[in-house]
Amino acid sequence: MKHIYIIGVGLIGGSISKDIKKLNPEITIHGIDKNDSHLEEAISLNLIDEKATFEDLYKADLVIVSIPVDATEILLPSILDNVSDDALVIDSGSTKASICKAVENHPKRRNFLATHPIAGTEFSGPKAAIEGLFENKTNIICEVEKTAFKLHERALTIFKIMGMNIRYMNPEAHDKHIAYVSHLSHISAFMLGKTVIEKEKNERDIFDLAGSGFASTVRLAKSSPNMWTPIFKQNKTNVIETLDEYISNLTKFKEYMEADKFDDIFNDMENINHIKDILNGIA
Amino acid sequence: MKHIYIIGVGLIGGSISKDIKKLNPEITIHGIDKNDSHLEEAISLNLIDEKATFEDLYKADLVIVSIPVDATEILLPSILDNVSDDALVIDSGSTKASICKAVENHPKRRNFLATHPIAGTEFSGPKAAIEGLFENKTNIICEVEKTAFKLHERALTIFKIMGMNIRYMNPEAHDKHIAYVSHLSHISAFMLGKTVIEKEKNERDIFDLAGSGFASTVRLAKSSPNMWTPIFKQNKTNVIETLDEYISNLTKFKEYMEADKFDDIFNDMENINHIKDILNGIA
Repeated sequence: MKHIYIIGVGLIGGSISKDIKKLNPEITIHGIDKNDSHLEEAISLNLIDEKATFEDLYKADLVIVSIPVDATEILLPSILDNVSDDALVIDSGSTKASICKAVENHPKRRNFLATHPIAGTEFSGPKAAIEGLFENKTNIICEVEKTAFKLHERALTIFKIMGMNIRYMNPEAHDKHIAYVSHLSHISAFMLGKTVIEKEKNERDIFDLAGSGFASTVRLAKSSPNMWTPIFKQNKTNVIETLDEYISNLTKFKEYMEADKFDDIFNDMENINHIKDILNGIA
Repeated sequence: MKHIYIIGVGLIGGSISKDIKKLNPEITIHGIDKNDSHLEEAISLNLIDEKATFEDLYKADLVIVSIPVDATEILLPSILDNVSDDALVIDSGSTKASICKAVENHPKRRNFLATHPIAGTEFSGPKAAIEGLFENKTNIICEVEKTAFKLHERALTIFKIMGMNIRYMNPEAHDKHIAYVSHLSHISAFMLGKTVIEKEKNERDIFDLAGSGFASTVRLAKSSPNMWTPIFKQNKTNVIETLDEYISNLTKFKEYMEADKFDDIFNDMENINHIKDILNGIA
């Protein structure tokens, strides 16, 4: 591999770039981004070596697509149109069914590997890129059987170097599971932020009274609407299901409180404490 | 000050003890706890110098009450009964109205200072105690006018040494504000944990798929039910109000999704992003 093209040089694309540059400085990393100031920033941060355009993609050994999922769905077919028969194209979107569907009949479907590296922060843009972001994180690969074996192997080599653990899953199962463990967390945090901001008109009060607990629970409410609106749109059915169950659990909790059933609340919380053991080691 | 008694040598009591021991090693710290193994642990961790009982409280210059709020409400009157006229008694509970009410007519009301240091972690017990936990954190003091001036001054000296910022508030305002910025966060996290655990019967799936985002949003679901059930009980009316508004915001979000109003979702999230600026510096 000599030429890697990163489409979208933000948190994910930039972090992948950092890892690759560190591990193999001989590779030339080309950046493509609709926002030219991001490209300039990415060059000055040494995330990419040079700017490029979609027309250059025929030179790519590897293309990493790390843009919002709606843009991926739209652009992926023409990205595949532009690459050579030997190129590998990887996406990193937080939804998989719509993206896989967008290229299911593409003549170069075998050049594409659908992945979702479960890593990130609440920040975005080139400055948010972090070295080692993917170490010990899970990378979900979907529809591996549709990717050429040789290209799949090339991807695994890179993921291994980045320290990722691989899990294979079909796109529908991915979208259903991830709605619970990721998408719902974001809505929960956004709505917590909204509820507090609406109530506490005096921002000094929020600042003074909020402890690290609130800061942690609301952290994801800092996330980019550009990134997250299309995720909710593409995963609409699953996300609505998670919201139904979350709202129903909150309503039950409220009803326990109204009925002074604090023993039930205690037992509920004690059972949920089990999340400690499940999460041990994630942090 | 020579003799400090800490009632409840867990996360809060133990952390206060660590700070005091560091800043003034000549003070003797006595521990009282209904759980004798906590006392033994606190001694071996050097959080306290010796075990004590309620009968010893007449020797105290300062008593710190750091036990669940229901126990504080019940025990505070007899703690005040037992201390000398010159002793200062401080609580650290996450609710203030019920606790202040429990001693409003106590002959030694002037010996009591109602406080809520906004600091903590999701862990509990002596092992959870941390040095410097209170540095740069807010300490809310309620009904300061009911505490003897001299004793209030003694408290401020300690809080200053611990690095805390003071805010004065009446108990009702405290309970109303804190329901939003603290109590609701806990319920939001607990119910998120519940929703995910109920759905993902295969715990390996939660572990593999959960990123740092889920871990952060659900973190408070590790909190102690012994501590939190009485808080919800004492602050019932306010907490129910926050739940009503949180559920209503979640329901509106869901309705936007069902109606494909993704522009409204985008705008909502963009406004909520403002929490970034408000929280800056809390972390």
